[in-house]
Amino acid sequence: MAYTPVWFMRQAGRSLPEYRRLRGDEGLLDSLRKPDLAVEVTLQPVRRYGVDAAIVFSDIVVPAAATGFGVDIKAGVGPVVDRPFRSAADLDRIRPFQVDQDAPWLIETVSILASELSVPLIGFAGAPFTVASYLIEGRSSRDYVRTKTLMTTDTETWDALLERLGDQAIASGEAQVRAGAQAIQLFDSWAGALDPDSYRRHVLPATRKVLRALSGLAVPLIYFGVGTGELLGMLPEAGVDVVGVDWRVPLPTAWERTGAKAALQGNLDPALCAAGWEATKPAALRILRQARDAGIEGHVFNLGHGVLPDTDPDVLARLVDLVHEFDR
Amino acid sequence: MAYTPVWFMRQAGRSLPEYRRLRGDEGLLDSLRKPDLAVEVTLQPVRRYGVDAAIVFSDIVVPAAATGFGVDIKAGVGPVVDRPFRSAADLDRIRPFQVDQDAPWLIETVSILASELSVPLIGFAGAPFTVASYLIEGRSSRDYVRTKTLMTTDTETWDALLERLGDQAIASGEAQVRAGAQAIQLFDSWAGALDPDSYRRHVLPATRKVLRALSGLAVPLIYFGVGTGELLGMLPEAGVDVVGVDWRVPLPTAWERTGAKAALQGNLDPALCAAGWEATKPAALRILRQARDAGIEGHVFNLGHGVLPDTDPDVLARLVDLVHEFDR
Repeated sequence: MAYTPVWFMRQAGRSLPEYRRLRGDEGLLDSLRKPDLAVEVTLQPVRRYGVDAAIVFSDIVVPAAATGFGVDIKAGVGPVVDRPFRSAADLDRIRPFQVDQDAPWLIETVSILASELSVPLIGFAGAPFTVASYLIEGRSSRDYVRTKTLMTTDTETWDALLERLGDQAIASGEAQVRAGAQAIQLFDSWAGALDPDSYRRHVLPATRKVLRALSGLAVPLIYFGVGTGELLGMLPEAGVDVVGVDWRVPLPTAWERTGAKAALQGNLDPALCAAGWEATKPAALRILRQARDAGIEGHVFNLGHGVLPDTDPDVLARLVDLVHEFDR
Repeated sequence: MAYTPVWFMRQAGRSLPEYRRLRGDEGLLDSLRKPDLAVEVTLQPVRRYGVDAAIVFSDIVVPAAATGFGVDIKAGVGPVVDRPFRSAADLDRIRPFQVDQDAPWLIETVSILASELSVPLIGFAGAPFTVASYLIEGRSSRDYVRTKTLMTTDTETWDALLERLGDQAIASGEAQVRAGAQAIQLFDSWAGALDPDSYRRHVLPATRKVLRALSGLAVPLIYFGVGTGELLGMLPEAGVDVVGVDWRVPLPTAWERTGAKAALQGNLDPALCAAGWEATKPAALRILRQARDAGIEGHVFNLGHGVLPDTDPDVLARLVDLVHEFDR
């Protein structure tokens, strides 16, 4: 393709009026279980923006929820867990994710999308660390004290937990690719809460195992987290094909840290999009120029995190045009 | 001194039982206005831990509160603003901080501390960006959309706001040094929410002005924020003597990025201290070894952010001993 491809994390979601109309008051997990609804939500931003990829409307806690861990997603809050993971005794509550039985609706959603879409479909998977952090903290956290406590003081349970969550991610990714997904994005949104040594020691092995298993599917593997500037250098070797970069790290810097061994996805601050076109345009052009001038191969334009709910969809529409028209 | 000096951000605070007893239910801003109380709270961790520095018990919103902007600090929430800063019309609400009239108790607190302490006293100042973010958002924020919107769409008002807040920080720092503080830490806790280009363009000029003004006082200037990995390189030139580093950036990396032109302060993950000694000890030793092996001159051991409320004080006491006994 002659232009830089572009899509937006959380391009399907509350920023779109057609999404809010369709979802109404229905719970997020409930709406995922209805393939017609999930398909329509996934397609909305593709129609409206002309983005170059769709991503399955999903959430990283889907395997945990579908296998009965007891987790819901509350509007404006995020995942909330009934009985958080506390100790080895809770390991029995993390069982294998048998997608065809536990979440047949996910396979159906992906299959329909694969047949209807004219752009690539990205499958959705949660990375072991970030899923674990929700199961342990019980909800989103600022400090991750319970997570880091388990990680450093009961490494056996921690490793077993990440292994099981990794197996769920592998099962989920495999099922989505078999149903027609043409890439997988592994969301490790909060991995940047860790110092690099802790990440290398306690998270990278399980993450690498997921990436290696999914690499057998021969589709590009995207890995994303915020605040991961000091982790970027570990990712290509671990099997990441496309490194998601948040807005804190300039793309040329990310290109250096990854040794130019992976494509880069990012990295416009979503708050600038929410601030309006005046804030968005110069920042987007700067990123496009940086990618071009640094000779970055395989830049996928995206935001540095998900679209914020208050974002004006017209800003994103103009942004897609700007990226497509940029002379790289 | 033959050993690495150590102190902890928020060493005075809720993690100490003697602090909780003393403060009781009194509001934080009210307790700051009582020199006897503020002095005692400042001294508590020095007595208990034998740390090598005290930091004035204070908060970054003190100048705004003392000049009548209308801000309170709520337990477990942080600063909360009555009428957030919205537009140029609010600039009149940011007036000069005349410390001797607006906050004579601050001068008294610092004076008493300077005469009683046998370790250096660090003065406390809020950096323009982070103070502005509280005044604009009205409380702590995840995305800083309103802050970034003002910053990018009304740069004239933004620059004027940061200029005024910078003047308040200068007045505060000058008063504290005149009263006996032997260093100033400029807290820019949330500067890491910005991409480096936005920081350079919209924040660095006002920050540099504060640093240059305070440099006339001939005391070391410490600058601290979380998530500032990509900003570190700009700080020595701006006049920072000691760069605070959060736990995400290994000290040898920070040493490279700052061109070895400033001392480094940090950088143990406070969540590891909250997790206990078993988690704390190896991570602390790693940091000490890294600093030694990289030949970092002027390493001040600290956490990468403030002490978390649930931290066991005994862990911090052992940590001070560990740092002091380390063979560097």
